[in-house]
Amino acid sequence: MSKNLAKMSKKILAVLSAGSEEMEFTITVDILRRAGVNVTVGGLEGSDPVTCSRQVVIVPDKALSDVSTESFDGIFLPGGLVGAKNMCESKPLGELLKKLESEGKVIAAICAAPTALLAHSIGLGKSITSYPSTKDQLAGSYKYVDDQVIVQDGQLLTSRGPGTAMVFGLKLAEILVGMEKSQEVAKGMLLNGEYKLN
Amino acid sequence: MSKNLAKMSKKILAVLSAGSEEMEFTITVDILRRAGVNVTVGGLEGSDPVTCSRQVVIVPDKALSDVSTESFDGIFLPGGLVGAKNMCESKPLGELLKKLESEGKVIAAICAAPTALLAHSIGLGKSITSYPSTKDQLAGSYKYVDDQVIVQDGQLLTSRGPGTAMVFGLKLAEILVGMEKSQEVAKGMLLNGEYKLN
Repeated sequence: MSKNLAKMSKKILAVLSAGSEEMEFTITVDILRRAGVNVTVGGLEGSDPVTCSRQVVIVPDKALSDVSTESFDGIFLPGGLVGAKNMCESKPLGELLKKLESEGKVIAAICAAPTALLAHSIGLGKSITSYPSTKDQLAGSYKYVDDQVIVQDGQLLTSRGPGTAMVFGLKLAEILVGMEKSQEVAKGMLLNGEYKLN
Repeated sequence: MSKNLAKMSKKILAVLSAGSEEMEFTITVDILRRAGVNVTVGGLEGSDPVTCSRQVVIVPDKALSDVSTESFDGIFLPGGLVGAKNMCESKPLGELLKKLESEGKVIAAICAAPTALLAHSIGLGKSITSYPSTKDQLAGSYKYVDDQVIVQDGQLLTSRGPGTAMVFGLKLAEILVGMEKSQEVAKGMLLNGEYKLN
């Protein structure tokens, strides 16, 4: 049975860059792993420790350049203005995003990271949300939603900021492994109640 | 003015151990730094990278043994069952907690970490909360509260788990630097609304 489970377990690539928002990153990776998702942390700049937006230092599992041939069920981009800018400017990340988009895989981005979707022409015209300060950049190329905490449009899942990261992580878990597991994770986190954010 | 601000800025020691809950740790440190608190991450086992409860690897700023002579306005202990167990068994951490308690400094613990307060006889008899599964251990030595997300009793601040970590971090920021700054941080995180947890 464990072999079957291993075969079936979903694989997500979590991209981490200098200046990524550590809370959005860690909440999402933690929730996905609690849900049994196999998460690989790929360092945009390599495999060295990464200093995040509020100076928490996180070590990637691998360099992003070393995972490009692996197969994933989806990709997750955390926010942080500097981290997102680095993601906008990364040609290898752009190629990976295009490949995953064409394969119909899940593409999840939070906070400022949806700007990297625009930079690499991913999901143009779809409904998305983002950190409010990045709305003007995105509104011309996407159907911008600003009254929802998370927005799913087909393979694209976007969200707004640190305060919405738990809901985002749980929704991503739900997409990958189902509502039952996602709710079990929420319960273990003591997040059972209504969760009203704006 | 920047010199005065530097002089006035509050210093918190955030303890990180193998098996600490990375989401609770990162949320709290991130929020405190957003609030202008000077946070030092002290590694319980040294300054090497620490593998947390869901395999996120975080690098401490210093070994805990290298900060014991520094002065802090408070200490923060994240949860995670294994991390909290390590904190229970650490004699140097126990001595540091006793010193900070006697100086009237803030002692903040979330999830399973209040068990380390018990192990080192900190704040016995005070009102606390914790992750529900640790209630039985704590209820004989403290006034255990299980219908509140955060509990403050004098210098002691405790909370329940990952889902309550944002409220906990914001309350700790409020205690250290005031309500106005804490609310500004919450707003920047897009955490303006009601926040109903259990």
